[in-house]
Amino acid sequence: MFEDKNPQRTPLNQLGEFGLIEKIKSQFTLQHPSSKVGIGDDAAVIRHEHETVISTDLLVEGVHFDLSYVPLKHLGYKAVVVNLSDLYAMNAVPTQITVGLAVSNRFPLEAIDELYAGIALACKRYKVDLVGGDTTSSKTGLLLSVTAVGTANEKQLTYRSGAQENDLIVVSGDLGGAYMGLQILEREKAVYQVNPNNQPDLSEYAYAVERQLKPEARKDVVDLLQSWEIVPTAMIDISDGLSSELLHLCKASKLGCKIYENKLPVDPEVLRICKEMSINNTTAALNGGEDYELLFTVDQKHYETIKDHPLLSIIGHMTAKDSGEYLITGLDQQIALTAQGWTAESAED
Amino acid sequence: MFEDKNPQRTPLNQLGEFGLIEKIKSQFTLQHPSSKVGIGDDAAVIRHEHETVISTDLLVEGVHFDLSYVPLKHLGYKAVVVNLSDLYAMNAVPTQITVGLAVSNRFPLEAIDELYAGIALACKRYKVDLVGGDTTSSKTGLLLSVTAVGTANEKQLTYRSGAQENDLIVVSGDLGGAYMGLQILEREKAVYQVNPNNQPDLSEYAYAVERQLKPEARKDVVDLLQSWEIVPTAMIDISDGLSSELLHLCKASKLGCKIYENKLPVDPEVLRICKEMSINNTTAALNGGEDYELLFTVDQKHYETIKDHPLLSIIGHMTAKDSGEYLITGLDQQIALTAQGWTAESAED
Repeated sequence: MFEDKNPQRTPLNQLGEFGLIEKIKSQFTLQHPSSKVGIGDDAAVIRHEHETVISTDLLVEGVHFDLSYVPLKHLGYKAVVVNLSDLYAMNAVPTQITVGLAVSNRFPLEAIDELYAGIALACKRYKVDLVGGDTTSSKTGLLLSVTAVGTANEKQLTYRSGAQENDLIVVSGDLGGAYMGLQILEREKAVYQVNPNNQPDLSEYAYAVERQLKPEARKDVVDLLQSWEIVPTAMIDISDGLSSELLHLCKASKLGCKIYENKLPVDPEVLRICKEMSINNTTAALNGGEDYELLFTVDQKHYETIKDHPLLSIIGHMTAKDSGEYLITGLDQQIALTAQGWTAESAED
Repeated sequence: MFEDKNPQRTPLNQLGEFGLIEKIKSQFTLQHPSSKVGIGDDAAVIRHEHETVISTDLLVEGVHFDLSYVPLKHLGYKAVVVNLSDLYAMNAVPTQITVGLAVSNRFPLEAIDELYAGIALACKRYKVDLVGGDTTSSKTGLLLSVTAVGTANEKQLTYRSGAQENDLIVVSGDLGGAYMGLQILEREKAVYQVNPNNQPDLSEYAYAVERQLKPEARKDVVDLLQSWEIVPTAMIDISDGLSSELLHLCKASKLGCKIYENKLPVDPEVLRICKEMSINNTTAALNGGEDYELLFTVDQKHYETIKDHPLLSIIGHMTAKDSGEYLITGLDQQIALTAQGWTAESAED
């Protein structure tokens, strides 16, 4: 659907493994003072003054992305961003990444270039260095494995387990956009399969589609909290949906929670798409996933600081464990929150 | 061929993603003092006093392993070991790993258990902690992505680039075994495909097969060098074959080299298999790959210390860049060393 009909195709094996490593290496220069040695030896060398934080995520073709509508540059960008999001959720500063790439021969060198262009853009924007990785052939699809490394002062680290009863529950940005973007892309793919000459006009859905294809990690929120000298009591990033992440946070903190349907931040465009596609917008916000917003808890004393900031929404508060985990609807009903994971996804296969 | 005909099969999605994470988490306790926080938050937290070293490797089904003869426990073990080998090649001490696992629904929970049992065994034996990772479904095969983290004092780190002219070239253990083990396994697989009742007797090939299926990383060599207070001028691990790795070392150090055919360490069993299969044993030693031995250079003053140690073989010396990179055969011929990579492998596809 976004395919270039006449792309240049240089077979990957024309360059070879070492040629490809050299090519990648030449595109990345080390920026971060903590990066001592990057690509080109058996391992990279890093020097952190404080704690080192590390997180690994996989992105698998056919499971996490569909190359019929995901441009490779966006995919490279997103693969980095989703990992950085995990580090921001620790209140840490990302500093380096390593990238493992498994790719079949159906991808020419130009495709790998596009992918690394996206990785490079994310590295530049978030000021992290690509310091190593592995590139290998695969028998079938494309798989990206990104490990992100960062650093934080011990006192600034935020875990899932630190929330206290009555703490405010805060979420950044808005929810459900990435999920609705995916629904739009899937719908347009189906249309395109029927009539390949019908190029879709996605301009009406630009925000939601961008949330899906090119998410950002909330560096700005971490910076904002730091400028306020607020260290959240607990924090997690929203990759699997608000409901699922909030349950993780409750479980780790041994508490319950109450959140309010009418406080959930949903973008007007996303509301409109929900209506158009007959999907409940609260469901999209709770279970949609891939928004990469930050969900955190803070002491009530910060209410005045946070309440009117456009980046942040106070959506509820933590309760005693016995009280359970509930959404209070607009009609004042209590609905128990339920988790999502890949059980449902696997069942779809 | 090594398949259990009546295994228990619990579908993976019965447990779900979060159930699986809990199960994995319960099998791993943090041992290393530098591991502050392990599995269960957005990222792991590590505290190193010195430099942090990091390396990522992928193992892809159908490219790096064939599950018709690779037991999953061995695969888990090997996936860890090959990454630790990269850190030993930096003269560093491995401390943590993260594991990314993409697995299709054809694998039951029992298979994942076997895989993690191998990972756990390697963690125990090499005293490293599993601190994080990602588990996801895949549309086809199995893929493992391991990132290994370690630490080293800045003065002990060995790079590929530090070799000096006239330095001795030293290799640990013996070469070609893993490659010949693979040839044996491939041969027996072909026999088995013709007659599935014919269980192979691999006892005559035990060493070579073990080198292929369950390699070890040379922690002992790093410890030995440290006990001698020898810091190699350059070091690399042999994953792609001696020839290829030596060329990397020469290129990074801007030097040439001369190695001697009659100095290459090859195990008697491997020599016998080479004869049986009509494969030149020098070719197996030079290009076989997957031996995970250490290749390093040291100043000539260490000759007496090293020359008779059973773990080490002095196979040649570094020369000026203009002299090129050569093997001197038993008949005193000079043969230029050539690199291998996945160019050849891709061409086979």
